[in-house]
Amino acid sequence: MKTNRLEAFSDGVIAIIITIMVLNLKVPHGTSVVALAPVLPVFLNYALSFVYIGIYWNNHHHLLHATRQVSSAMMWANLHLLFWLSLIPFVTGWMGENHFAAVPTALYGGVLLMAAIAYFILQWSIILDQGSDSLLAGALGRDIKGKFSMLGYAAAIALAFFNHWFADGLYILIARCVAGTGPAHCTGA
Amino acid sequence: MKTNRLEAFSDGVIAIIITIMVLNLKVPHGTSVVALAPVLPVFLNYALSFVYIGIYWNNHHHLLHATRQVSSAMMWANLHLLFWLSLIPFVTGWMGENHFAAVPTALYGGVLLMAAIAYFILQWSIILDQGSDSLLAGALGRDIKGKFSMLGYAAAIALAFFNHWFADGLYILIARCVAGTGPAHCTGA
Amino acid sequence: MKTNRLEAFSDGVIAIIITIMVLNLKVPHGTSVVALAPVLPVFLNYALSFVYIGIYWNNHHHLLHATRQVSSAMMWANLHLLFWLSLIPFVTGWMGENHFAAVPTALYGGVLLMAAIAYFILQWSIILDQGSDSLLAGALGRDIKGKFSMLGYAAAIALAFFNHWFADGLYILIARCVAGTGPAHCTGA
Amino acid sequence: MKTNRLEAFSDGVIAIIITIMVLNLKVPHGTSVVALAPVLPVFLNYALSFVYIGIYWNNHHHLLHATRQVSSAMMWANLHLLFWLSLIPFVTGWMGENHFAAVPTALYGGVLLMAAIAYFILQWSIILDQGSDSLLAGALGRDIKGKFSMLGYAAAIALAFFNHWFADGLYILIARCVAGTGPAHCTGA
Repeated sequence: MKTNRLEAFSDGVIAIIITIMVLNLKVPHGTSVVALAPVLPVFLNYALSFVYIGIYWNNHHHLLHATRQVSSAMMWANLHLLFWLSLIPFVTGWMGENHFAAVPTALYGGVLLMAAIAYFILQWSIILDQGSDSLLAGALGRDIKGKFSMLGYAAAIALAFFNHWFADGLYILIARCVAGTGPAHCTGA
Repeated sequence: MKTNRLEAFSDGVIAIIITIMVLNLKVPHGTSVVALAPVLPVFLNYALSFVYIGIYWNNHHHLLHATRQVSSAMMWANLHLLFWLSLIPFVTGWMGENHFAAVPTALYGGVLLMAAIAYFILQWSIILDQGSDSLLAGALGRDIKGKFSMLGYAAAIALAFFNHWFADGLYILIARCVAGTGPAHCTGA
Repeated sequence: MKTNRLEAFSDGVIAIIITIMVLNLKVPHGTSVVALAPVLPVFLNYALSFVYIGIYWNNHHHLLHATRQVSSAMMWANLHLLFWLSLIPFVTGWMGENHFAAVPTALYGGVLLMAAIAYFILQWSIILDQGSDSLLAGALGRDIKGKFSMLGYAAAIALAFFNHWFADGLYILIARCVAGTGPAHCTGA
Repeated sequence: MKTNRLEAFSDGVIAIIITIMVLNLKVPHGTSVVALAPVLPVFLNYALSFVYIGIYWNNHHHLLHATRQVSSAMMWANLHLLFWLSLIPFVTGWMGENHFAAVPTALYGGVLLMAAIAYFILQWSIILDQGSDSLLAGALGRDIKGKFSMLGYAAAIALAFFNHWFADGLYILIARCVAGTGPAHCTGA
């Protein structure tokens, strides 16, 4: 079995996830600039989640590029990843509408942590099937960043209950680390 | 006519169905963990439906892989299947929001039963067009599971009026049976 | 320019149109069979619109299959068709929620008429660009049905103001005519 | 890396953006022609936004057709463009529901301006990677129109605070200019 249809299906699901998030931006009733104020935190959080899903699409793209065929385990590992990604619009809406309160901010990190774990499982399902040859070396390089990010999400979940600004800042730092092309974006941030 | 565009269209529709279900997870008004409580049954039901639609995508993928060309009957049988799958977000929402009450739980099984029948018709429309050669042998193996699952859905619909936990448990067992690679998942569950 | 990306984009839009219609099926508040009653007309209308959009996808598939390259006029004629198709979820919802009242039933026919005209324009934009050669003969055969259907929609719009059952029946007859493989489905209905 | 999957993902996101805008057309409660009146401005604005997104899809299609491979910068420039396009349903809804009031009309222009800048950046990310060879000459021709349109959006934002009809008219003129095949559509409009 080739990877084409798995890529096409994942692209479709990720494209829908990244787009339906915008439905959380509720059209305000007033027509002044002030009427936009409650939309602002939802918008900022939308932008952050847009970047995260963009990163996942990008990395997913590279990962499957290095994959030759699809096993049954890979198919389910991929669906598992899409499941956690599909919850991002929900937690983005909850976090944004509540001005980054503690529990929604922690849950946001929780879903990102689960997605990172699901991505880790997907990588291993590919390596177990096809061996850790040179094609996947790049993907494994990203894997190190994956472990970094998992620690970061866990820290952000804990920080959300002390000061949500620390958690928010950490989410931005992790995005910068995972999106960057080298490890310098993670350590020197 | 080739199967490419039929696959692409089905992938698109299934990707949208699996994703818009998450719109049933309404953003709660409070910011505490308690505020998440009403979302929990909707979430659990979302996870179950996600698995079911994932199974359909997976099996559909294998079925069309074994198909060489598309007839008019196949095209309509495929749209018929997509129609019943498209109702899954509606029944998932109704069942989840009402904490698995009898009628919604039975209707959930009813839509799954209709989708299983539609899948059965799609398989036969392919076999009638192309003959039951070796390529479809695997698909027919799945067909036996299809008959198993139809009986299971019918039983779950009846059980929903006695005790919804039995019906819910049966939905999970059927999913495990249909998703598995061998008949052992169906009998030894 | 090849037709691949035009097909892929149209498939995407049509897949979304056919699926988001289901969002009009609002989850009822009660848990009894009676609570489903208000959903029934919306459901029936959803099924009708599902068939119509399925027909358009099917015919669009055949039409572009007979097309070798894409002109600028074709691209815009295609977007024009997608525009009218995208209004079908709106008129389906209005007609279904108001139990097939006169104005919504007439507007439903109006949007179908505009879509039929847009399809007619798309056919001609292809023929003007590529000549009426043998490949488009099949498409032109469907064109005759297109003219049939336009007359039918106009009649249904008028009938909606006398008795909506006549209009509804006509919508079903037209769908049967346009979906069928021969003219017998149109005359002998 | 080839452009296939970038095209497929962009097509998916643009197809969803162009379609979910129709969800802003709320089903009216009455059944008379009068009940449609509040929907009319939303509908007109939907048609305008549909044309704009159609233009972007069309131009994006030509731009990537002239691109041989995808760099990391291009991937992010493309996501940046999709981000601003994804906000069009939100500003379309706000502008339409408020009968083209000043601030929503200006914000509509603001999002279009940001999308035009993002498209400009995407063009340059391609040229920087692949050199300004003959294949991109057509794209650069469109670039001149892009600069025209940016000035137009800036003017429309200012005009929205004086008389929204001027701003609305300008949005239509810019669409006609950018969609046209020659510069005559921009100067002689």
